[in-house]
Amino acid sequence: MNASIITIGDELLIGQTIDTNSAFIAQEFNQFGLWVKRRVAVGDNFEDIWNVLDQESENSQIIIITGGLGPTADDITKPLLCKYFGGELVLNEEVLKHIKYLFKNVLKHKTPLLKRNIMQAEVPDVCTVLFNEKGTAPGMWFEKEIKGEKRIFVSLPGVPHEMKWLMVNEVIPRLKKEFQFGAVMHRTAVTFGMGESSVAELLQPFENKLPQHIALAYLPNFGMVKMRLTATGIEKDALADELSEYFDELCSTVQDILVAKEDLAIEVIVGQLLREMGKTVASAESCTGGNIAHLVTRVPGSSAYFKGSVVAYANEIKENVLGVQSRTLETVGAVSEETVTEMVKGTIERLGVDYAVATSGIMGPDGGSEEKPVGTVWIAAGNKLKVETKLLKLRFDRERNIEVASVQALNFFRNFVTLNR
Amino acid sequence: MNASIITIGDELLIGQTIDTNSAFIAQEFNQFGLWVKRRVAVGDNFEDIWNVLDQESENSQIIIITGGLGPTADDITKPLLCKYFGGELVLNEEVLKHIKYLFKNVLKHKTPLLKRNIMQAEVPDVCTVLFNEKGTAPGMWFEKEIKGEKRIFVSLPGVPHEMKWLMVNEVIPRLKKEFQFGAVMHRTAVTFGMGESSVAELLQPFENKLPQHIALAYLPNFGMVKMRLTATGIEKDALADELSEYFDELCSTVQDILVAKEDLAIEVIVGQLLREMGKTVASAESCTGGNIAHLVTRVPGSSAYFKGSVVAYANEIKENVLGVQSRTLETVGAVSEETVTEMVKGTIERLGVDYAVATSGIMGPDGGSEEKPVGTVWIAAGNKLKVETKLLKLRFDRERNIEVASVQALNFFRNFVTLNR
Repeated sequence: MNASIITIGDELLIGQTIDTNSAFIAQEFNQFGLWVKRRVAVGDNFEDIWNVLDQESENSQIIIITGGLGPTADDITKPLLCKYFGGELVLNEEVLKHIKYLFKNVLKHKTPLLKRNIMQAEVPDVCTVLFNEKGTAPGMWFEKEIKGEKRIFVSLPGVPHEMKWLMVNEVIPRLKKEFQFGAVMHRTAVTFGMGESSVAELLQPFENKLPQHIALAYLPNFGMVKMRLTATGIEKDALADELSEYFDELCSTVQDILVAKEDLAIEVIVGQLLREMGKTVASAESCTGGNIAHLVTRVPGSSAYFKGSVVAYANEIKENVLGVQSRTLETVGAVSEETVTEMVKGTIERLGVDYAVATSGIMGPDGGSEEKPVGTVWIAAGNKLKVETKLLKLRFDRERNIEVASVQALNFFRNFVTLNR
Repeated sequence: MNASIITIGDELLIGQTIDTNSAFIAQEFNQFGLWVKRRVAVGDNFEDIWNVLDQESENSQIIIITGGLGPTADDITKPLLCKYFGGELVLNEEVLKHIKYLFKNVLKHKTPLLKRNIMQAEVPDVCTVLFNEKGTAPGMWFEKEIKGEKRIFVSLPGVPHEMKWLMVNEVIPRLKKEFQFGAVMHRTAVTFGMGESSVAELLQPFENKLPQHIALAYLPNFGMVKMRLTATGIEKDALADELSEYFDELCSTVQDILVAKEDLAIEVIVGQLLREMGKTVASAESCTGGNIAHLVTRVPGSSAYFKGSVVAYANEIKENVLGVQSRTLETVGAVSEETVTEMVKGTIERLGVDYAVATSGIMGPDGGSEEKPVGTVWIAAGNKLKVETKLLKLRFDRERNIEVASVQALNFFRNFVTLNR
């Protein structure tokens, strides 16, 4: 069984917003064996939306539509769907009650209840209304017979947390009731420190003997390579066992560079390690500008091991808050092995943590010199006894340099902690 | 003239990666009047890729294809394109030379040059090779006559910085040589502090009198509402003048809540303001965990006004580094008006800045209480003379709570600075 995801909105076609909804929907569907065959984005244009509905119902039995349900005039999805499925817009009392509740209790009357808000309670009389606890636009579930086969069309608001709530609480339970799904399973291994081609070379004999229904894919990013095994079949338990065997073989083949046997972000891996050990960490960040702290604190429960960070963007903060010596900054400069070493030492002492990680570098576009070009980054990790350092030479734009330096520093830190428990 | 963007890769369909490439391509195209009609993502499947090529050539004259060009076996795009356009794979000496150069000078022989890397120099003999300075996979430019009309297909690697380099340096200059483009223009106004519906109500009379070729769209996010005017036409200068007039009227209608007359992120707006004034800022972050610092330092040149941040996740860092009184933490707690006020004062004093912004709150999923539920966030902004505070009650998941609190704090800070220069 296949699904298509249709996202609606000019903002997607002029590049003003990045579509994160589709990834969420695809992840959820994959977990119970519903394969997303296509994702299509179209603009706020009647004909384009109409055509894509026709087209995707040729490709898939289940069609998820997000966006275009807002209260403003550029949102044309609802009247269009009404026409497409041959219905009429009628006021839904339950939705109206909920809209009034939201305006009273959540928005606290700071925003007046307008006619256009009330109109959000109008729904096509040919759909099942999906109650949206998180917002004013309800989800809509349509069914249509095409060539003797039932098609499901679900329209959801584009606001991510509303869409997510409706997917988890309404759409998926209903789909599971409606259909029997086959099994699709994934296992992902994360490696660090070897390029995609070399990993693929190492895995060539393994890949050659994989059966037809198990596929290997490579996802290189930030100096990591993720390898994903995907198995498809009917019998869930047997498939899981088979996949497990192949996955174990994959992991033992890449053992030397293996970082995790799950698709986990490096900040989650580091968090698990510290939590296991009952140890604490803080970061001292110059060029990564707080991004390491941001990554670490995105993880729920990170306060158990993360105490904080000093983002020492200016040299005086490196001196005054972290205790880096002014002589060091004057002689070898802020972007140096000596500075990141002192940043780690100062952090451990002044923030009272077991471990610290530090960064200092030049992210660009300006600030580079012949001796220290843009992309020169020193990273350091240490505990009370020892500090280790590494020089990175990055070659991306500013944003990516920051991302790569943060991930590389976290992995360097993970290595240090693993070897210096 | 229309374009379609096709992205290839199972990772997009199982939600493992988020597609940021399409947004970049769409933005670039829009600047010179090339409208992206559709974006389609398909998996690493021969038939699906073949079909989408057929289909999009019905929709658009220009088809950009990204992904599937890597050195591993799941990358099937190149042989497929070769077959689709009726060519044969031949070794391109110039590409091979470049691959060898990259392995020698950039990768410094840390990675061996494998047969699969050399194979990346094989290209269909029916395409124009687009030289990829940033990586080993070249871009490919194909032309095909369909119903008497020329279609351009361009295949680019999926690695973002390689794709970007090829777009800017190869694809766009060639398209501009090949075609005459009409004009598409956008102007965006950013507002803060009023909901989408109320803004739309305010703008109803304005919207009603817009001509057919100028459209208004709303993009609500993080408590901001962006309004975008899009004009399409032939004569660039006349169109720009016309758009400008309508845009001025739009801005004066929303004057009281207007934050910027360009599509700028709040951290850019704040940066421009501080730079203009020659003043400095630092942040003291508890619940935002360094995200404010991260947003601010993503902006090139931010070191001119941003000195640093103390991410005081643990209470002892609030006390020891920022000088928050232990009595305050004991009596009213870390999530309180008093604590964020002391955080601002401590930051200004100890980090030696003109202004500071601080946050403390409960982001979830755990840590809430009846008195202070998840989503309770205190923010503060101040200078040497005065500190102002605000209480937020957020109702999202952890990740979005962090994002919204950061953006709200930056806007609260912007307001404070504007009124207390």
